[in-house]
Amino acid sequence: MTYCAAINVAEGLVFISDSRTNAGIDNISTYSKMKAFGVPGERQFVICCAGNLATTQAVLAQVERDIEEQAEVNLFNVKRMADAASYIGSLSLAEQNRSATPDAVFSATFLVGGEIAGARCRAFMVYPEGNFISTAKQNPFLQIGETKYGKPIMDRILTENTSLDDAALCALLSMDATTRSNLSVGPPIELYVYHRGSLQVGKYICFVEDSEYLRQLRSSWNESVREAFARLPNISWTETNQ
Amino acid sequence: MTYCAAINVAEGLVFISDSRTNAGIDNISTYSKMKAFGVPGERQFVICCAGNLATTQAVLAQVERDIEEQAEVNLFNVKRMADAASYIGSLSLAEQNRSATPDAVFSATFLVGGEIAGARCRAFMVYPEGNFISTAKQNPFLQIGETKYGKPIMDRILTENTSLDDAALCALLSMDATTRSNLSVGPPIELYVYHRGSLQVGKYICFVEDSEYLRQLRSSWNESVREAFARLPNISWTETNQ
Repeated sequence: MTYCAAINVAEGLVFISDSRTNAGIDNISTYSKMKAFGVPGERQFVICCAGNLATTQAVLAQVERDIEEQAEVNLFNVKRMADAASYIGSLSLAEQNRSATPDAVFSATFLVGGEIAGARCRAFMVYPEGNFISTAKQNPFLQIGETKYGKPIMDRILTENTSLDDAALCALLSMDATTRSNLSVGPPIELYVYHRGSLQVGKYICFVEDSEYLRQLRSSWNESVREAFARLPNISWTETNQ
Repeated sequence: MTYCAAINVAEGLVFISDSRTNAGIDNISTYSKMKAFGVPGERQFVICCAGNLATTQAVLAQVERDIEEQAEVNLFNVKRMADAASYIGSLSLAEQNRSATPDAVFSATFLVGGEIAGARCRAFMVYPEGNFISTAKQNPFLQIGETKYGKPIMDRILTENTSLDDAALCALLSMDATTRSNLSVGPPIELYVYHRGSLQVGKYICFVEDSEYLRQLRSSWNESVREAFARLPNISWTETNQ
Protein backbone atom coordinates (compact mmCIF):
# COMPACT_ATOMS: atom_id res chain seq x y z
CA MET A 1 0.00 0.00 0.00
CA THR A 2 0.99 3.65 0.00
CA TYR A 3 0.21 6.85 1.80
CA CYS A 4 1.07 10.24 0.28
CA ALA A 5 -0.36 13.68 0.96
CA ALA A 6 0.04 17.16 -0.49
CA ILE A 7 -0.82 20.26 1.53
CA ASN A 8 -1.30 23.71 0.03
CA VAL A 9 -1.20 26.57 2.56
CA ALA A 10 -0.61 30.30 2.19
CA GLU A 11 3.15 29.95 2.74
CA GLY A 12 3.65 27.10 0.29
CA LEU A 13 3.39 23.36 -0.23
CA VAL A 14 4.14 20.26 1.83
CA PHE A 15 4.49 16.74 0.43
CA ILE A 16 4.86 13.53 2.38
CA SER A 17 5.21 9.93 1.22
CA ASP A 18 5.99 6.53 2.64
CA SER A 19 8.27 4.08 0.83
CA ARG A 20 6.75 0.64 1.30
CA THR A 21 5.49 -1.31 -1.68
CA ASN A 22 4.01 -4.75 -1.77
CA ALA A 23 2.97 -7.28 -4.35
CA GLY A 24 1.10 -9.49 -1.93
CA ILE A 25 1.79 -9.45 1.79
CA ASP A 26 4.80 -11.75 1.29
CA ASN A 27 6.56 -9.47 -1.17
CA ILE A 28 7.43 -6.19 0.52
CA SER A 29 9.95 -3.75 -0.93
CA THR A 30 11.15 -0.21 -0.39
CA TYR A 31 10.84 2.36 -3.16
CA SER A 32 10.77 6.13 -3.01
CA LYS A 33 7.38 7.43 -4.12
CA MET A 34 8.42 11.08 -4.30
CA LYS A 35 10.32 12.79 -7.10
CA ALA A 36 11.28 16.47 -7.44
CA PHE A 37 12.04 18.23 -10.73
CA GLY A 38 12.92 21.86 -11.29
CA VAL A 39 14.80 24.75 -12.81
CA PRO A 40 15.87 27.14 -10.03
CA GLY A 41 14.28 30.56 -10.40
CA GLU A 42 11.90 29.27 -13.05
CA ARG A 43 9.88 26.23 -11.94
CA GLN A 44 9.71 23.56 -9.22
CA PHE A 45 7.65 20.35 -9.17
CA VAL A 46 7.10 17.50 -6.76
CA ILE A 47 5.34 14.29 -7.82
CA CYS A 48 4.13 11.57 -5.43
CA CYS A 49 2.74 8.25 -6.65
CA ALA A 50 0.41 5.49 -5.52
CA GLY A 51 -0.78 2.41 -7.31
CA ASN A 52 0.90 -0.04 -9.62
CA LEU A 53 4.68 0.32 -9.34
CA ALA A 54 5.35 -0.61 -12.97
CA THR A 55 2.97 2.14 -14.08
CA THR A 56 4.32 4.83 -11.73
CA GLN A 57 7.95 4.01 -12.57
CA ALA A 58 7.16 4.10 -16.30
CA VAL A 59 5.43 7.48 -15.92
CA LEU A 60 8.32 9.02 -13.96
CA ALA A 61 10.85 7.62 -16.45
CA GLN A 62 8.85 9.16 -19.29
CA VAL A 63 8.73 12.50 -17.46
CA GLU A 64 12.55 12.45 -17.30
CA ARG A 65 12.93 11.33 -20.92
CA ASP A 66 10.58 14.06 -22.11
CA ILE A 67 12.61 16.70 -20.25
CA GLU A 68 15.88 15.30 -21.63
CA GLU A 69 14.61 15.07 -25.19
CA GLN A 70 12.81 18.43 -24.93
CA ALA A 71 9.54 16.84 -26.02
CA GLU A 72 6.79 19.13 -27.33
CA VAL A 73 5.13 18.91 -23.91
CA ASN A 74 7.34 18.36 -20.89
CA LEU A 75 7.58 19.63 -17.30
CA PHE A 76 10.17 22.22 -18.29
CA ASN A 77 7.99 23.93 -20.89
CA VAL A 78 4.40 23.72 -19.53
CA LYS A 79 3.00 27.14 -18.64
CA ARG A 80 0.78 26.35 -15.68
CA MET A 81 0.62 23.72 -12.93
CA ALA A 82 -2.71 22.48 -14.35
CA ASP A 83 -0.87 21.75 -17.62
CA ALA A 84 1.63 19.70 -15.63
CA ALA A 85 -1.19 17.73 -13.98
CA SER A 86 -2.86 17.15 -17.33
CA TYR A 87 0.46 15.99 -18.83
CA ILE A 88 1.03 13.49 -15.98
CA GLY A 89 -2.55 12.28 -16.45
CA SER A 90 -1.94 11.66 -20.17
CA LEU A 91 1.30 9.75 -19.53
CA SER A 92 -0.42 7.65 -16.86
CA LEU A 93 -3.38 6.84 -19.07
CA ALA A 94 -1.13 5.92 -22.02
CA GLU A 95 0.96 3.64 -19.83
CA GLN A 96 -2.13 1.97 -18.30
CA ASN A 97 -3.64 1.40 -21.75
CA ARG A 98 -0.39 -0.12 -22.97
CA SER A 99 -0.29 -2.73 -20.20
CA ALA A 100 -3.99 -3.40 -19.60
CA THR A 101 -5.33 -6.90 -20.20
CA PRO A 102 -9.00 -7.91 -20.35
CA ASP A 103 -8.70 -8.96 -16.69
CA ALA A 104 -6.38 -6.37 -15.18
CA VAL A 105 -5.76 -2.64 -15.23
CA PHE A 106 -2.51 -1.45 -13.65
CA SER A 107 -3.82 1.85 -12.38
CA ALA A 108 -1.98 4.65 -10.62
CA THR A 109 -2.78 7.91 -8.85
CA PHE A 110 -0.45 10.93 -8.56
CA LEU A 111 -0.05 14.07 -6.52
CA VAL A 112 1.49 16.84 -8.61
CA GLY A 113 2.39 20.15 -7.04
CA GLY A 114 4.72 23.07 -7.46
CA GLU A 115 5.07 26.48 -9.00
CA ILE A 116 5.97 27.97 -12.37
CA ALA A 117 7.16 31.59 -12.73
CA GLY A 118 4.24 33.79 -13.74
CA ALA A 119 1.63 31.22 -12.71
CA ARG A 120 0.02 30.05 -9.45
CA CYS A 121 1.60 27.69 -6.95
CA ARG A 122 -0.76 24.71 -6.84
CA ALA A 123 -1.24 21.05 -5.92
CA PHE A 124 -3.33 18.47 -7.78
CA MET A 125 -4.40 14.88 -7.44
CA VAL A 126 -4.40 13.05 -10.77
CA TYR A 127 -6.86 10.15 -10.95
CA PRO A 128 -6.12 6.90 -12.79
CA GLU A 129 -8.50 8.15 -15.51
CA GLY A 130 -6.13 11.07 -16.17
CA ASN A 131 -8.43 13.82 -14.89
CA PHE A 132 -7.50 15.75 -11.77
CA ILE A 133 -8.66 17.91 -8.88
CA SER A 134 -6.96 20.72 -6.99
CA THR A 135 -6.75 21.68 -3.33
CA ALA A 136 -9.04 24.56 -2.34
CA LYS A 137 -9.17 27.16 0.43
CA GLN A 138 -11.75 25.05 2.26
CA ASN A 139 -9.83 21.88 1.56
CA PRO A 140 -6.10 22.53 1.74
CA PHE A 141 -4.91 18.93 1.40
CA LEU A 142 -5.10 15.94 -0.93
CA GLN A 143 -4.27 12.32 -0.12
CA ILE A 144 -3.65 9.19 -2.16
CA GLY A 145 -3.39 5.51 -1.19
CA GLU A 146 -4.40 4.53 2.35
CA THR A 147 -6.08 7.85 3.13
CA LYS A 148 -8.50 7.28 6.00
CA TYR A 149 -6.39 6.72 9.12
CA GLY A 150 -4.48 9.96 8.52
CA LYS A 151 -7.43 12.18 7.61
CA PRO A 152 -8.90 13.09 11.04
CA ILE A 153 -5.74 14.88 12.26
CA MET A 154 -5.50 16.84 8.98
CA ASP A 155 -9.19 17.76 9.27
CA ARG A 156 -8.59 19.07 12.78
CA ILE A 157 -5.39 21.03 12.20
CA LEU A 158 -5.07 22.29 8.64
CA THR A 159 -6.45 25.54 7.28
CA GLU A 160 -5.06 27.69 4.49
CA ASN A 161 -3.35 29.83 7.15
CA THR A 162 -1.51 27.00 8.89
CA SER A 163 2.24 27.75 8.82
CA LEU A 164 4.47 25.61 6.59
CA ASP A 165 6.25 24.17 9.65
CA ASP A 166 2.94 23.22 11.26
CA ALA A 167 1.63 21.76 8.00
CA ALA A 168 4.80 19.62 7.77
CA LEU A 169 4.36 18.48 11.39
CA CYS A 170 0.71 17.67 10.73
CA ALA A 171 1.74 15.64 7.68
CA LEU A 172 4.11 13.62 9.90
CA LEU A 173 1.36 12.94 12.46
CA SER A 174 -1.01 11.93 9.68
CA MET A 175 1.66 9.53 8.41
CA ASP A 176 2.19 8.25 11.96
CA ALA A 177 -1.52 7.42 12.38
CA THR A 178 -1.40 5.59 9.05
CA THR A 179 1.76 3.56 9.68
CA ARG A 180 0.44 2.52 13.12
CA SER A 181 -2.75 1.09 11.64
CA ASN A 182 -1.60 -0.23 8.25
CA LEU A 183 1.65 -2.21 8.22
CA SER A 184 1.84 -1.98 4.44
CA VAL A 185 2.57 1.75 4.80
CA GLY A 186 6.05 2.32 6.22
CA PRO A 187 9.38 4.15 6.33
CA PRO A 188 11.56 5.67 4.99
CA ILE A 189 9.23 8.67 5.20
CA GLU A 190 10.03 11.49 2.76
CA LEU A 191 9.00 15.05 3.54
CA TYR A 192 9.36 18.02 1.18
CA VAL A 193 8.51 21.64 1.99
CA TYR A 194 8.33 24.27 -0.75
CA HIS A 195 8.11 28.03 -0.02
CA ARG A 196 5.59 29.73 -2.28
CA GLY A 197 7.25 32.22 -4.60
CA SER A 198 10.79 30.96 -3.98
CA LEU A 199 11.04 28.90 -7.19
CA GLN A 200 13.98 27.19 -5.48
CA VAL A 201 14.42 23.59 -4.40
CA GLY A 202 12.57 23.12 -1.11
CA LYS A 203 13.61 21.61 2.21
CA TYR A 204 13.74 17.82 1.94
CA ILE A 205 14.20 15.21 4.60
CA CYS A 206 14.09 11.45 4.59
CA PHE A 207 13.26 9.83 7.94
CA VAL A 208 14.72 6.34 8.01
CA GLU A 209 13.20 3.36 9.81
CA ASP A 210 14.99 3.98 13.11
CA SER A 211 14.79 7.79 12.97
CA GLU A 212 15.24 9.11 16.52
CA TYR A 213 13.22 12.23 15.72
CA LEU A 214 10.25 10.24 14.39
CA ARG A 215 10.39 7.95 17.43
CA GLN A 216 10.35 10.98 19.75
CA LEU A 217 7.59 12.72 17.81
CA ARG A 218 5.50 9.55 17.95
CA SER A 219 5.92 9.04 21.67
CA SER A 220 5.51 12.72 22.49
CA TRP A 221 2.31 12.93 20.40
CA ASN A 222 0.97 9.75 21.93
CA GLU A 223 1.65 11.15 25.39
CA SER A 224 -0.01 14.48 24.50
CA VAL A 225 -3.13 12.78 23.14
CA ARG A 226 -3.37 10.64 26.27
CA GLU A 227 -2.97 13.69 28.51
CA ALA A 228 -5.59 15.62 26.55
CA PHE A 229 -7.88 12.59 26.84
CA ALA A 230 -7.36 12.43 30.61
CA ARG A 231 -8.51 16.07 30.93
CA LEU A 232 -11.83 15.55 29.12
CA PRO A 233 -15.04 15.93 31.14
CA ASN A 234 -16.81 12.70 32.08
CA ILE A 235 -19.76 11.49 30.08
CA SER A 236 -23.03 13.15 30.97
CA TRP A 237 -25.36 10.21 31.62
CA THR A 238 -28.25 12.61 32.20
CA GLU A 239 -28.67 13.23 28.45
CA THR A 240 -32.28 12.71 27.41
CA ASN A 241 -32.72 9.15 26.25
CA GLN A 242 -34.86 8.46 23.24
CA MET B 1 -22.81 3.50 5.94
CA THR B 2 -22.43 2.52 9.59
CA TYR B 3 -19.92 2.70 12.38
CA CYS B 4 -20.20 0.47 15.44
CA ALA B 5 -17.59 -0.62 17.95
CA ALA B 6 -17.43 -2.98 20.91
CA ILE B 7 -14.79 -2.59 23.62
CA ASN B 8 -13.93 -5.29 26.15
CA VAL B 9 -11.96 -4.04 29.18
CA ALA B 10 -11.40 -5.49 32.64
CA GLU B 11 -14.40 -3.64 34.10
CA GLY B 12 -16.84 -4.62 31.36
CA LEU B 13 -18.08 -3.86 27.87
CA VAL B 14 -18.81 -0.70 25.88
CA PHE B 15 -20.87 -0.58 22.69
CA ILE B 16 -21.37 2.39 20.39
CA SER B 17 -23.35 2.74 17.18
CA ASP B 18 -24.47 5.47 14.82
CA SER B 19 -27.98 5.49 13.33
CA ARG B 20 -27.64 6.63 9.73
CA THR B 21 -28.55 4.30 6.90
CA ASN B 22 -28.47 4.96 3.21
CA ALA B 23 -29.59 3.24 0.05
CA GLY B 24 -27.67 5.55 -2.25
CA ILE B 25 -26.56 9.02 -1.21
CA ASP B 26 -30.05 10.38 -1.97
CA ASN B 27 -31.86 7.98 0.32
CA ILE B 28 -30.78 8.59 3.91
CA SER B 29 -32.72 7.29 6.88
CA THR B 30 -32.33 6.89 10.62
CA TYR B 31 -32.46 3.44 12.22
CA SER B 32 -31.11 2.21 15.51
CA LYS B 33 -28.34 -0.34 14.94
CA MET B 34 -28.10 -1.44 18.58
CA LYS B 35 -30.35 -3.88 20.39
CA ALA B 36 -30.12 -5.16 23.97
CA PHE B 37 -31.63 -8.42 25.24
CA GLY B 38 -31.43 -9.92 28.70
CA VAL B 39 -32.71 -11.65 31.78
CA PRO B 40 -31.60 -9.71 34.89
CA GLY B 41 -29.30 -11.76 37.10
CA GLU B 42 -28.91 -14.42 34.41
CA ARG B 43 -27.73 -13.03 31.07
CA GLN B 44 -27.27 -9.76 29.16
CA PHE B 45 -26.57 -9.25 25.44
CA VAL B 46 -25.99 -6.30 23.15
CA ILE B 47 -26.03 -6.68 19.36
CA CYS B 48 -24.86 -4.01 16.88
CA CYS B 49 -25.31 -4.36 13.12
CA ALA B 50 -23.76 -3.14 9.89
CA GLY B 51 -24.57 -4.00 6.32
CA ASN B 52 -27.79 -4.64 4.48
CA LEU B 53 -30.69 -3.28 6.53
CA ALA B 54 -33.16 -5.91 5.32
CA THR B 55 -30.77 -8.63 6.48
CA THR B 56 -29.98 -7.07 9.87
CA GLN B 57 -33.65 -6.35 10.59
CA ALA B 58 -34.62 -9.89 9.64
CA VAL B 59 -31.91 -11.33 11.90
CA LEU B 60 -32.94 -9.20 14.90
CA ALA B 61 -36.61 -10.07 14.32
CA GLN B 62 -35.70 -13.77 14.26
CA VAL B 63 -33.70 -13.38 17.48
CA GLU B 64 -36.82 -11.97 19.15
CA ARG B 65 -39.12 -14.62 17.65
CA ASP B 66 -36.78 -17.40 18.78
CA ILE B 67 -36.80 -16.05 22.34
CA GLU B 68 -40.59 -15.67 22.31
CA GLU B 69 -41.17 -19.14 20.88
CA GLN B 70 -38.48 -20.68 23.08
CA ALA B 71 -36.75 -22.14 20.03
CA GLU B 72 -34.29 -25.00 20.57
CA VAL B 73 -31.44 -22.48 20.29
CA ASN B 74 -32.15 -18.90 21.34
CA LEU B 75 -30.33 -16.14 23.24
CA PHE B 76 -32.09 -17.08 26.46
CA ASN B 77 -30.86 -20.67 26.50
CA VAL B 78 -27.33 -20.59 25.00
CA LYS B 79 -24.64 -21.47 27.53
CA ARG B 80 -21.73 -19.30 26.41
CA MET B 81 -21.25 -16.02 24.55
CA ALA B 82 -19.52 -17.91 21.74
CA ASP B 83 -22.73 -19.92 21.28
CA ALA B 84 -24.61 -16.63 20.97
CA ALA B 85 -22.17 -15.40 18.30
CA SER B 86 -22.45 -18.69 16.44
CA TYR B 87 -26.26 -18.51 16.59
CA ILE B 88 -26.30 -14.95 15.20
CA GLY B 89 -23.91 -16.09 12.46
CA SER B 90 -26.27 -18.93 11.49
CA LEU B 91 -29.31 -16.64 11.37
CA SER B 92 -27.39 -14.11 9.28
CA LEU B 93 -26.16 -16.73 6.83
CA ALA B 94 -29.64 -18.26 6.48
CA GLU B 95 -31.15 -14.82 5.82
CA GLN B 96 -28.45 -13.92 3.27
CA ASN B 97 -28.90 -17.24 1.46
CA ARG B 98 -32.65 -16.70 1.32
CA SER B 99 -32.35 -13.32 -0.39
CA ALA B 100 -29.21 -13.77 -2.51
CA THR B 101 -29.51 -13.51 -6.30
CA PRO B 102 -26.83 -14.47 -8.82
CA ASP B 103 -25.80 -10.79 -8.92
CA ALA B 104 -26.22 -9.62 -5.34
CA VAL B 105 -25.56 -10.77 -1.80
CA PHE B 106 -27.19 -8.77 0.98
CA SER B 107 -24.46 -9.26 3.53
CA ALA B 108 -24.31 -8.10 7.14
CA THR B 109 -21.79 -7.96 9.98
CA PHE B 110 -22.61 -8.01 13.70
CA LEU B 111 -21.02 -7.20 17.02
CA VAL B 112 -22.33 -9.52 19.74
CA GLY B 113 -21.30 -9.01 23.34
CA GLY B 114 -22.49 -9.66 26.85
CA GLU B 115 -22.33 -12.10 29.70
CA ILE B 116 -24.09 -15.30 30.77
CA ALA B 117 -24.06 -16.49 34.40
CA GLY B 118 -21.34 -19.09 34.86
CA ALA B 119 -19.55 -18.15 31.63
CA ARG B 120 -17.14 -15.42 30.51
CA CYS B 121 -18.14 -11.87 29.59
CA ARG B 122 -17.09 -11.49 25.96
CA ALA B 123 -17.49 -9.53 22.72
CA PHE B 124 -17.41 -10.95 19.19
CA MET B 125 -17.54 -9.72 15.63
CA VAL B 126 -19.62 -11.99 13.40
CA TYR B 127 -18.58 -11.93 9.73
CA PRO B 128 -21.08 -12.15 6.85
CA GLU B 129 -19.89 -15.75 6.40
CA GLY B 130 -21.19 -16.59 9.89
CA ASN B 131 -17.81 -17.19 11.50
CA PHE B 132 -16.57 -14.83 14.20
CA ILE B 133 -13.62 -13.43 16.13
CA SER B 134 -13.30 -12.23 19.71
CA THR B 135 -11.53 -9.28 21.33
CA ALA B 136 -8.24 -10.18 23.02
CA LYS B 137 -6.05 -8.70 25.75
CA GLN B 138 -3.76 -7.20 23.11
CA ASN B 139 -6.74 -6.07 21.04
CA PRO B 140 -9.56 -4.93 23.31
CA PHE B 141 -11.89 -3.56 20.61
CA LEU B 142 -13.73 -4.62 17.45
CA GLN B 143 -15.23 -2.36 14.82
CA ILE B 144 -17.69 -2.84 11.95
CA GLY B 145 -18.68 -0.59 9.04
CA GLU B 146 -16.59 2.53 8.40
CA THR B 147 -13.76 1.48 10.71
CA LYS B 148 -10.66 3.40 9.67
CA TYR B 149 -11.22 7.04 10.72
CA GLY B 150 -12.02 6.00 14.27
CA LYS B 151 -9.24 3.44 14.75
CA PRO B 152 -6.19 5.65 15.53
CA ILE B 153 -7.72 7.11 18.73
CA MET B 154 -8.71 3.63 19.94
CA ASP B 155 -5.20 2.34 19.16
CA ARG B 156 -3.71 5.16 21.24
CA ILE B 157 -6.01 5.01 24.26
CA LEU B 158 -7.44 1.54 24.85
CA THR B 159 -5.84 -1.24 26.83
CA GLU B 160 -7.53 -4.00 28.81
CA ASN B 161 -7.07 -1.86 31.93
CA THR B 162 -8.77 1.27 30.62
CA SER B 163 -11.68 2.16 32.91
CA LEU B 164 -15.23 1.69 31.61
CA ASP B 165 -15.83 5.45 31.70
CA ASP B 166 -12.66 6.12 29.71
CA ALA B 167 -13.49 3.37 27.24
CA ALA B 168 -16.92 4.94 26.72
CA LEU B 169 -15.34 8.38 26.22
CA CYS B 170 -12.85 6.90 23.76
CA ALA B 171 -15.73 5.28 21.86
CA LEU B 172 -17.38 8.70 21.56
CA LEU B 173 -14.16 10.29 20.22
CA SER B 174 -13.76 7.44 17.77
CA MET B 175 -17.33 8.05 16.61
CA ASP B 176 -16.61 11.79 16.39
CA ALA B 177 -13.61 11.23 14.09
CA THR B 178 -15.79 9.00 11.91
CA THR B 179 -18.80 11.30 11.66
CA ARG B 180 -16.52 14.26 10.81
CA SER B 181 -14.99 12.41 7.86
CA ASN B 182 -17.88 10.30 6.59
CA LEU B 183 -21.25 12.03 6.29
CA SER B 184 -23.03 8.71 5.86
CA VAL B 185 -22.24 7.94 9.52
CA GLY B 186 -24.31 10.10 11.84
CA PRO B 187 -26.46 10.65 14.94
CA PRO B 188 -28.37 9.65 16.97
CA ILE B 189 -25.34 8.01 18.60
CA GLU B 190 -26.18 5.14 20.97
CA LEU B 191 -23.81 4.21 23.79
CA TYR B 192 -24.17 1.21 26.09
CA VAL B 193 -21.94 0.36 29.05
CA TYR B 194 -22.14 -3.03 30.76
CA HIS B 195 -20.40 -3.77 34.10
CA ARG B 196 -18.73 -7.19 34.05
CA GLY B 197 -20.30 -9.56 36.53
CA SER B 198 -23.41 -7.41 37.12
CA LEU B 199 -25.72 -9.44 34.81
CA GLN B 200 -27.98 -6.36 34.95
CA VAL B 201 -29.05 -4.00 32.18
CA GLY B 202 -26.20 -1.55 31.57
CA LYS B 203 -26.09 2.23 31.33
CA TYR B 204 -27.57 3.38 28.03
CA ILE B 205 -27.62 6.80 26.44
CA CYS B 206 -28.76 8.08 23.08
CA PHE B 207 -27.12 11.33 21.94
CA VAL B 208 -29.44 13.10 19.53
CA GLU B 209 -28.35 15.24 16.59
CA ASP B 210 -28.18 18.49 18.54
CA SER B 211 -26.84 16.97 21.78
CA GLU B 212 -25.21 19.75 23.78
CA TYR B 213 -22.85 17.29 25.48
CA LEU B 214 -21.62 15.86 22.18
CA ARG B 215 -21.13 19.37 20.80
CA GLN B 216 -19.07 20.34 23.85
CA LEU B 217 -17.07 17.11 23.80
CA ARG B 218 -16.28 17.67 20.12
CA SER B 219 -15.17 21.25 20.56
CA SER B 220 -13.25 20.52 23.75
CA TRP B 221 -11.44 17.57 22.11
CA ASN B 222 -10.69 19.61 19.03
CA GLU B 223 -9.25 22.36 21.21
CA SER B 224 -7.18 19.86 23.21
CA VAL B 225 -5.75 18.25 20.10
CA ARG B 226 -4.84 21.66 18.69
CA GLU B 227 -3.18 22.69 21.96
CA ALA B 228 -1.25 19.42 22.12
CA PHE B 229 -0.20 19.99 18.51
CA ALA B 230 1.00 23.51 19.31
CA ARG B 231 3.28 22.13 22.05
CA LEU B 232 5.06 19.63 19.78
CA PRO B 233 8.77 20.21 19.08
CA ASN B 234 9.60 21.60 15.64
CA ILE B 235 10.78 19.31 12.88
CA SER B 236 14.44 18.43 13.06
CA TRP B 237 15.69 19.27 9.57
CA THR B 238 19.15 18.01 10.49
CA GLU B 239 18.05 14.36 10.17
CA THR B 240 20.45 12.48 7.92
CA ASN B 241 19.09 12.57 4.39
CA GLN B 242 19.30 9.45 2.28
